[in-house]
Amino acid sequence: MKVLVTGGAGFLGQRLARQLLTRGQLSDSRGRTHSIDQIVLVDVVPAHDFGDARVRVVTGDIADRALLRQTIDTDTTSIFHLAAIVSGQAEADFDLGMRINLDASRLLLDICRELGHRPKVVFTSSVAVYGGTLPDVVQDSTALNPQSSYGTQKAIGELLLNDYSRRGFVDGRVLRLPTISVRPGKPNKAASSFASGIIREPLHGESSVCPVAPELRLWLLSPRRAIESLIAAHELPAQSLGDSRTVNLPGVSVSVGQMVAALEKVAGPEVASRISFAPDAAVERIVKSWPGAWDVTRARALGLAADADFETIIRAFIEDESEDALTAGKA
Amino acid sequence: MKVLVTGGAGFLGQRLARQLLTRGQLSDSRGRTHSIDQIVLVDVVPAHDFGDARVRVVTGDIADRALLRQTIDTDTTSIFHLAAIVSGQAEADFDLGMRINLDASRLLLDICRELGHRPKVVFTSSVAVYGGTLPDVVQDSTALNPQSSYGTQKAIGELLLNDYSRRGFVDGRVLRLPTISVRPGKPNKAASSFASGIIREPLHGESSVCPVAPELRLWLLSPRRAIESLIAAHELPAQSLGDSRTVNLPGVSVSVGQMVAALEKVAGPEVASRISFAPDAAVERIVKSWPGAWDVTRARALGLAADADFETIIRAFIEDESEDALTAGKA
Repeated sequence: MKVLVTGGAGFLGQRLARQLLTRGQLSDSRGRTHSIDQIVLVDVVPAHDFGDARVRVVTGDIADRALLRQTIDTDTTSIFHLAAIVSGQAEADFDLGMRINLDASRLLLDICRELGHRPKVVFTSSVAVYGGTLPDVVQDSTALNPQSSYGTQKAIGELLLNDYSRRGFVDGRVLRLPTISVRPGKPNKAASSFASGIIREPLHGESSVCPVAPELRLWLLSPRRAIESLIAAHELPAQSLGDSRTVNLPGVSVSVGQMVAALEKVAGPEVASRISFAPDAAVERIVKSWPGAWDVTRARALGLAADADFETIIRAFIEDESEDALTAGKA
Repeated sequence: MKVLVTGGAGFLGQRLARQLLTRGQLSDSRGRTHSIDQIVLVDVVPAHDFGDARVRVVTGDIADRALLRQTIDTDTTSIFHLAAIVSGQAEADFDLGMRINLDASRLLLDICRELGHRPKVVFTSSVAVYGGTLPDVVQDSTALNPQSSYGTQKAIGELLLNDYSRRGFVDGRVLRLPTISVRPGKPNKAASSFASGIIREPLHGESSVCPVAPELRLWLLSPRRAIESLIAAHELPAQSLGDSRTVNLPGVSVSVGQMVAALEKVAGPEVASRISFAPDAAVERIVKSWPGAWDVTRARALGLAADADFETIIRAFIEDESEDALTAGKA
């Protein structure tokens, strides 16, 4: 069997690929387990291939039918569709967001439909599909009301995945991811980029400016749990999902102030003092529209788990990164 | 000013056009009233022009950019986007539903965006955006979970209208219509076609087979009220809509059994006896997924009203149609 990972050069795509290479197998939509013969990593920049002969790297635009078509065949029984234009960028460049977040997602689903082999498709959605007046804890039954183009495009992707699954064109699973924190690497154009930056940069000895108020609540998930959840959701039998393929993943609900306090507890007051606050209205408008927590009864029943707390998330980040981070940082 | 009506040859499109010709004026997105210089009726079949020089009939495919582009210019300050492939047909022909219900809607919005004049766009959505396990009375905050491709495509259209409005490309208003009953004319391929047929055909002296059980509850709106609501929603100031452009229109909640009883009360037992029941699983599956009632607090606050009851709806149908119906029918 073959696995396709879109956004395969991204940080989640790369971690997922590494995990799949170690794991070596996945189940198909009939519940039969197959060994993974090939993992295709497609992205706009070249992915690392881990020096593993099973990895095929494809570089290009996933909204291009010819390119996408050559990454999928009837042996491609699993697709992890992670590629996306992030929230801040989709707001700044409307056409680019529509092309990648909507058109490319539909193209991928249409290619699967044409091939007719009903692959499993795991699609990542986001807290950004919610917005407007929300209850303290969002329920599975709470209406979507995205207040950004990114959230709109993700919500449309969810609807398509559900209908294509209902019609038997694909066997889809949509995971609404909490904000991922702590991401390694550099800041990106996501409105939520600070949710990693205010932890990562201070740990690297650098200052970090937080664009939202300390009172703002976030719903967070560590990269480790995100990867575990992607694979676990892939392995679930379709019938366990009932009449909706969309699952709100468990997260940790913390205020930005609590994140700073957790950093101080884990790394000391000097590190925490590297965070300063300078509100940015554009970022705050988007991030404030997202839920600070949602009900996770369904996800728990499906065996999907959250991190223990935000301190645990920071410690895992330090563990994952310790060597590199301490060398690269000026601490 | 110019008005565009897509689906302009359809029964709602024609009634809307006649009403607009009588009314003679509409307000723009800045609240300024203009007289209507032209009404463009575009549809796949030719619309009637009512012998009025203000009506321009355009015949063709609204998913064709060139055709749609020639129906909209910067004087087109009002668009009523009614064209759609109905539920049963969108379920039977997936590509056709996607092309008209999704692609043509997006094309229309993109043409408005390109022109940059921010027209008012009134888009009709449907009970079919709901589905799955629903509360007895659906709330504005209830999640969409369409169980048909038509419902999925309408839900996507809603999301696009909202985002294009938020970004200032159009001034959109989305009306979720209850099932329209009693429609004149012939049965169509909507799964809800029977909701008019079981009243219309018996009144015309013909028998009618109801494909769902008498216990099934429907949420109904008369054609008269639908047209009133389309115009009233067009005239609302944008700021009255808050962070969502979508409004659930008031309706009358009745079971199919109560509809039959109302027909008997209005037209007598002989007429009502022309209805027989023969469940059709495909129709029942779709129609059962729709809500039988939803909360209308918001619509009422906006001044949008329901019919008094189903008897009133039947009497209005007889009034609107009496001459023709009694001639055409065999009663």
